Amino acid sequence: MPLALENLLDVKHREKSIVEILELSPEALKGVSNSDAQKLKEAFGITTIRQLGENKFFMAAAALARAGMNPDYDPGPPPFWLNKFAQLPDSYYVNHPSGRFRVHFGGVPYRGRLDDTARVIVVGQDPSTDEAIARRAFVGNAGQRLQKLLYKTGIVRSYIIINTFAYSIIGQANNEMRIIAQEPIIKNFREDLLNTLIERNPIEAIITLGVGAKEAMSTWNNPENKQMFHLFHPSAQTGLEDNWNTHLPLLIANITPDNPAIIDATPYSGEWSENTHRMNIPRFDLPYNLPDWHGTEGTNSNRGPDKIKEITWTSILS
Amino acid sequence: MPLALENLLDVKHREKSIVEILELSPEALKGVSNSDAQKLKEAFGITTIRQLGENKFFMAAAALARAGMNPDYDPGPPPFWLNKFAQLPDSYYVNHPSGRFRVHFGGVPYRGRLDDTARVIVVGQDPSTDEAIARRAFVGNAGQRLQKLLYKTGIVRSYIIINTFAYSIIGQANNEMRIIAQEPIIKNFREDLLNTLIERNPIEAIITLGVGAKEAMSTWNNPENKQMFHLFHPSAQTGLEDNWNTHLPLLIANITPDNPAIIDATPYSGEWSENTHRMNIPRFDLPYNLPDWHGTEGTNSNRGPDKIKEITWTSILS
Repeated sequence: MPLALENLLDVKHREKSIVEILELSPEALKGVSNSDAQKLKEAFGITTIRQLGENKFFMAAAALARAGMNPDYDPGPPPFWLNKFAQLPDSYYVNHPSGRFRVHFGGVPYRGRLDDTARVIVVGQDPSTDEAIARRAFVGNAGQRLQKLLYKTGIVRSYIIINTFAYSIIGQANNEMRIIAQEPIIKNFREDLLNTLIERNPIEAIITLGVGAKEAMSTWNNPENKQMFHLFHPSAQTGLEDNWNTHLPLLIANITPDNPAIIDATPYSGEWSENTHRMNIPRFDLPYNLPDWHGTEGTNSNRGPDKIKEITWTSILS
Repeated sequence: MPLALENLLDVKHREKSIVEILELSPEALKGVSNSDAQKLKEAFGITTIRQLGENKFFMAAAALARAGMNPDYDPGPPPFWLNKFAQLPDSYYVNHPSGRFRVHFGGVPYRGRLDDTARVIVVGQDPSTDEAIARRAFVGNAGQRLQKLLYKTGIVRSYIIINTFAYSIIGQANNEMRIIAQEPIIKNFREDLLNTLIERNPIEAIITLGVGAKEAMSTWNNPENKQMFHLFHPSAQTGLEDNWNTHLPLLIANITPDNPAIIDATPYSGEWSENTHRMNIPRFDLPYNLPDWHGTEGTNSNRGPDKIKEITWTSILS
């Protein structure tokens, strides 16, 4: 018996290889009758176990069931996006003659929704240390500021975040990096993600963060002419408050909220070091079993409901 | 519209909350007819989207389809095991008066199969540094030696690995740790995992690694009287070769292989520092997008087919 499938298949099929098993009728599954299999065929044209396991209606129902559970973690990309992200040009980054990329931690392609339910695309600059550990974009201090901004616009989950560069850059986004951002291999990967996201999701707004992202995006053809908002980077040293306060009402006006009740047009004021300008990264954006201080500004001992608001998916369930 | 479900649901249902949506007939899914929904009900008693999304036959078929894809990563535990691992007594570890636990990286509950297809349970000691990053058990040097041992017995994927302590310990597994291993809260969590794994999987062998794991397991009641093999820890400084060579034929005799063709009863010999005594941790055991040098003994530049054999799921597909 090549695989331990005692719990899944009828006895007579257990000696078969996985390749053979996937081509069997669903009737081969333990507990599925010939009549059951016939109904699957009549309803959805399903004639094999593979077709059953990849059926789009089941996948949609499973995604909805997951949404209703307030998921505890992000399991990683579904097959479509797994294949898309596999096109990330690792060797181009690793061998780049500029030496401007940190290569030891690989690329970080995304954070957020890959289930065709994003309304907002965020394009940042590059992943940094927190992102190297979490393997997701924008989870450190800048990410937590972005999270708060999205929350103020009423967005709890309907976003997808990518970066200008999938690899961490060394030094600042200076003129050299602006040129590198336009190199075809880097540009094509980024724009293929953008175009595909737009094809598959009901996108209402694209937010760029920082001058590097803005300039990188200036040469994109924006095929569906989506509304773009060019914001200062969340880590900008000066002018951030004015810039974000200018954009906040525009974002609110242009984005359908996940939850209208949480929209908060109150302008930013006070110190940016304050926790009130940040929000924890939702656990449903992070991989399974990441230490629970990750995506927050501190350890358990100095977290508290008075400091940083927790986002849960259930804040939009009712 | 609370959620961006344009791509999943019929127009008339899109304003509903997720809680309401999950109770709708599958007919509410875009592309599912009344007649299709009726057949789902007749075949499997499915009357709601939630029931469709959680249907065990779909789940089994999806697991098989995934097995046939040579999965690139471990998405994390399915709901049953997510809930089980959520019972890990974090605060007990964090506040333990001995101060013997590294608390900042949380617990690491497992590596391997959680889909009811494991034949071997491995019980190690505690997670260390590599495991803190990977969030999976036994991925460093010791884990790579274990992986090679399993491979020599013909096992490529049908294992599940847990630890005596889900948290990393400070210092050695001395007498104090042996006593702590028997404290009810720690023992109960460990043994609940064991008992549940045995209930759900066709387990043929339990391998303990190191004297700490052996002693911890000596008080377990072993409800189905499974065969246990007490091996030296892969990091043991002395006696490892003799000990593993004694056990290797016993393991081969007692465990149904995933692939009989790879069984290798050749005794271990030579330096344990050699790569021939290790094997890369399969990518299907690691989370999405972990840097690709992780789970191996080196960076890309010093890896090669002559050094460390790669395991892929497809080595058992035919």
